[in-house]
This record gives sequence, structure tokens and C-alpha cells, in this order.
Amino acid sequence: MIERLVIAGVGLIGGSLALALKEKNYCKEIIGLGRDEASLRHAVDLGVIDRFSTDPKVALEGAEVVLLAVPMQAMLPVLKSMKPYLPEHAILTDAGSTKQSVIAEVEQVLGENFARFVPGHPIAGREKSGVDAALANLYEGRRVILTPTPYTDPQALQTVEQLWQVTGARVEHMSPDLHDQVLAATSHLPHVVAFAVVDTLLKLPDHDDILRYAGGGFRDSTRIASSDPTMWRDICLTNTDAIVEVVEALRENLAEFVAMMRERDSEGLHNRMNQVKQARDAYISKYDAR
Amino acid sequence: MIERLVIAGVGLIGGSLALALKEKNYCKEIIGLGRDEASLRHAVDLGVIDRFSTDPKVALEGAEVVLLAVPMQAMLPVLKSMKPYLPEHAILTDAGSTKQSVIAEVEQVLGENFARFVPGHPIAGREKSGVDAALANLYEGRRVILTPTPYTDPQALQTVEQLWQVTGARVEHMSPDLHDQVLAATSHLPHVVAFAVVDTLLKLPDHDDILRYAGGGFRDSTRIASSDPTMWRDICLTNTDAIVEVVEALRENLAEFVAMMRERDSEGLHNRMNQVKQARDAYISKYDAR
Repeated sequence: MIERLVIAGVGLIGGSLALALKEKNYCKEIIGLGRDEASLRHAVDLGVIDRFSTDPKVALEGAEVVLLAVPMQAMLPVLKSMKPYLPEHAILTDAGSTKQSVIAEVEQVLGENFARFVPGHPIAGREKSGVDAALANLYEGRRVILTPTPYTDPQALQTVEQLWQVTGARVEHMSPDLHDQVLAATSHLPHVVAFAVVDTLLKLPDHDDILRYAGGGFRDSTRIASSDPTMWRDICLTNTDAIVEVVEALRENLAEFVAMMRERDSEGLHNRMNQVKQARDAYISKYDAR
Repeated sequence: MIERLVIAGVGLIGGSLALALKEKNYCKEIIGLGRDEASLRHAVDLGVIDRFSTDPKVALEGAEVVLLAVPMQAMLPVLKSMKPYLPEHAILTDAGSTKQSVIAEVEQVLGENFARFVPGHPIAGREKSGVDAALANLYEGRRVILTPTPYTDPQALQTVEQLWQVTGARVEHMSPDLHDQVLAATSHLPHVVAFAVVDTLLKLPDHDDILRYAGGGFRDSTRIASSDPTMWRDICLTNTDAIVEVVEALRENLAEFVAMMRERDSEGLHNRMNQVKQARDAYISKYDAR
């Protein structure tokens, strides 16, 4: 049970956490902090938060837990604006999609209070963004990865872990650098590819005909190309090295497919596709990924 | 209404057509032709076909319409085995995923009877294959593209068009070469990419951790990497030029993303992703793609 939760950035991610915690009566009060008064008022009208302020001093008073759910590029300025008003024992956590960069920023701003920071990443999302897209069940059965550092206070970690468990999420721990590698491969790569595939089609001479006749496979495989450009720009600029590495590996892999096609290597193509299918099918049934 | 429909290759595609036509009582009799007696018997047990033969002479007797729904690589041998027994006025159609190659093969085998051939491609599928995966509603609301040549008999075209309309499909006409270009971009490219993305991940040093933590975005974006390897090998080998062209364009596009990331081009990344998102959203609402 949490007395007072402050959410900095009441959008899809922060709003969905608020809705889930309200449904379970896990917080006495949830307070929104942000810059856009109209949007925060709308979040109150939707029943997502209890009250709000655009002033960190007002919003943070008596906060027990503070969630940073702002875009990655806003993390540093928001942290700086909050710092003077963070209650001494408040626990800070975040929902950023890359972790090493956020950890470095928090360490830089908070200094000795860094131990009360619990870096986190709920692996859930929708192609829609904003508080109107928030869902009480967004995190149900989804993974939330917490990436504590050697300095992270174990009690703070436990509090944040319980908070996410209340939403129905499966909480796991990972080192920040493994997190960033794993996410580059399984999330950031598919997103960059989806953006690039759609962009490639838009640049073909007959793209009107092409998009008109696109089938379901195309719709599904490019769904994530309708994701929020600001968020993905930020991810590309905060997890650059890991993303570039897997994108370059994919470019090489595609070159191998092209070579097999040009050389009419029937057996090679079949073997490669078959191995991929078997491995993916095994993984889906093993981990029952949502 | 069709008296006698022969389906050569009773799998997902042929079986689903049979189920849809039976549901609408559009065929007096549906006969399966194939090599695997056990599988054909199973199709009879499932109620997909009325009877079967592994002998083209028996199966094709009195056929009004013949659907070729065998893998692309089997088209030519199956055509040759059927040729002596095709009734003079029988209409031949197919369900191949690429059209120029099938048309060339049919022209080569049928000669002067080529006019009774109606090339077709139902744009529907599942990652599962085989007659057990067949669904009576697989084609409902989906597009079926017919690609008549200048020689195609208009009456034969009309018969095949009506056949597909009975399934609830939306039938459209296109030239064979435009079809192959459009499909390379909207279907073949996403499939090759999905195979290559999964293959890339499987070759990373930490791929066990990586697949364990993969989220829903990864599952959706690689769903089609569980497609039938034989079918996709065949597609890659029959529509090679068009596929290679778009894969190379994608590799170039990915290189541009990598360059923007390395140069920390925040504005360029945001603009490009935003344009893609806007265009995709507009296309989805305009064409309501299934």
C-alpha cells in the first residue's frame, strides 16, 4: 500500500499504471505532474489521477514513490526541476525504454540520493500514445524489468517490485547493460525495421498501387511503424551502439538472403527458413510470449 | 453453380476454397487430386472434399473447373501430368503467389488451350499449412487478384471470378507484372525480413536471454517467420528480381537510419519516423486492410 504516488508524465505508460493501482486500491492518492495543464485536467476527468500540479514543489510534497514516465529526452530536465523538492525518503523509479542512459542521468542529478532510484522498464505499449490510450490491464501478464545498480537500496527495490506486481506484471531483474542489449535486439530492431520497411515502400515509384493491395501480413509486420516518433527517436539516440550493432547484423543477413536468391540456392534458402521457423515456433511455445 | 470442381493440392488454400464453396452449396462435387493418399482421405473425413484420386485420369474426368493449389515448384510437373486428361472445355485456374512464372509454365504446357487458363492469387494465408488449417471463412473480405493475359477467355475469367466471390473475397484484376511487383513489396519483402530478423537474433551470442525477454512487438513483427519454408523458398526463386530489388532498397534505407543514429541527427530521425507513421496511419484508415 502506498500513501502518495506522484507520476511525472501522465501518458499511456504512467496513466495505465495509475489505472491499475486504482483498480486494486493500492494507492491512497495519485498525483500527476506535468507541463500541460489541459492534459492533466483531462487525466483527472478520466479518473486516472486524483489531482495534479504543474509545479514540482506542489506535486512532490509528501511523495512516497515518484514515477518518471516522461519521454527519454525529457528525463534530464525533469529530474533537475524535481530535485530540490524530492522528499528525503521518496523512492524514485522510471519507465524508460533504455536503462544505462537514464541511470547515468539520475546519478548525475541526484548524487548521494541515487540509492533511492530504482531503474525500471515495463515491456508493454500500444501504437497509440497519450492518457486516452491508457488501460488498467496494460501490464497484465507483461514483463517489467528492473535493473538495479550495485548502489540501489534493497527496500526501495522491493517497494517498486510490489508496485508493479499489483498490476499483474511479471517482474524480473536484469543488469542495465544486458537489458539494453536484449531490448535492442527484440524491440528496438523490429521497430527500426518496421519504420524502414514502410519508408522503403513509400519511396517506390508505384507506392499507391502497392499500399492499396497490401495484405494482412504487411499490416501486422508494420503495425509498430505507427509507434510514437518522439519516443523512438529518443530510443535510437540513447541506445545507439546496441541498435546499430543489430541493424548492421540484419543488413548482413539480408545480403546473405539476396545472395542465395541470386545464386538460386534452393537448398540453402529452404534450410535457413526452416531453421528460423523451427526456432521461432519453439520459442513461442516455450515462453508463451504475449 | 459448378458441376464438378477438381482441386489439385488439397492444403490450406485449396481446402479453404472447398469448405467455403460447400458452405454455399456452389459445387455439386469437389474432387481432390494429389499424391498423398492418406492426406486426401483425411480431407474427405474432414468434409473438405467429396472424393479423391491420385490418378489425374480419374480425378479430372468431367471436370468443369480445375484449381491448381500445389506449391510453386510442383506447378510444372503437376501440369504435365494433368495435361492429357484435361477435358476440352475445362477451365484451369491457380492460386500461386507469383504470377509471371506460372503463366509461362502453363503456356509452355497447354499450348493452344492456354486461353482457358485464368491466373489467380488469393491474398490470404495463415502461418499454419495443410488441410487441417483450412477454414471456410479464410477468404471472407480478403482480396483475390486475377491476372488475365491478353489471351485469357473472358467467359473463363468470369467463371473463376464468380467462384471466388462466393467465398466472400473481393476480386480484383491486375496485370501479371504489376502483381509480382506489388506482392514483392507488400508480402515477399516483409516475409524475407521476418526470416532475416529472427535469424539475426538466433546468431547473437546471448540469444537465449534475448528470446526469453522478447515482448509482444517482437512476436507480432516476426509472426510471418513461422510461415511454410517450402512455399517461401519457392516464392523467392520465382519472383527473384522483384524481391531482390526491394530487399536491396531496404538495406539502403536501413543504412540511412544507421547513419542518422551515428550522426545523432535527432531532427532527421524524428522527421523520417513521423512521415512513416503518418503515411501508414493514413493508408490503414483509407484501405482498412485486413
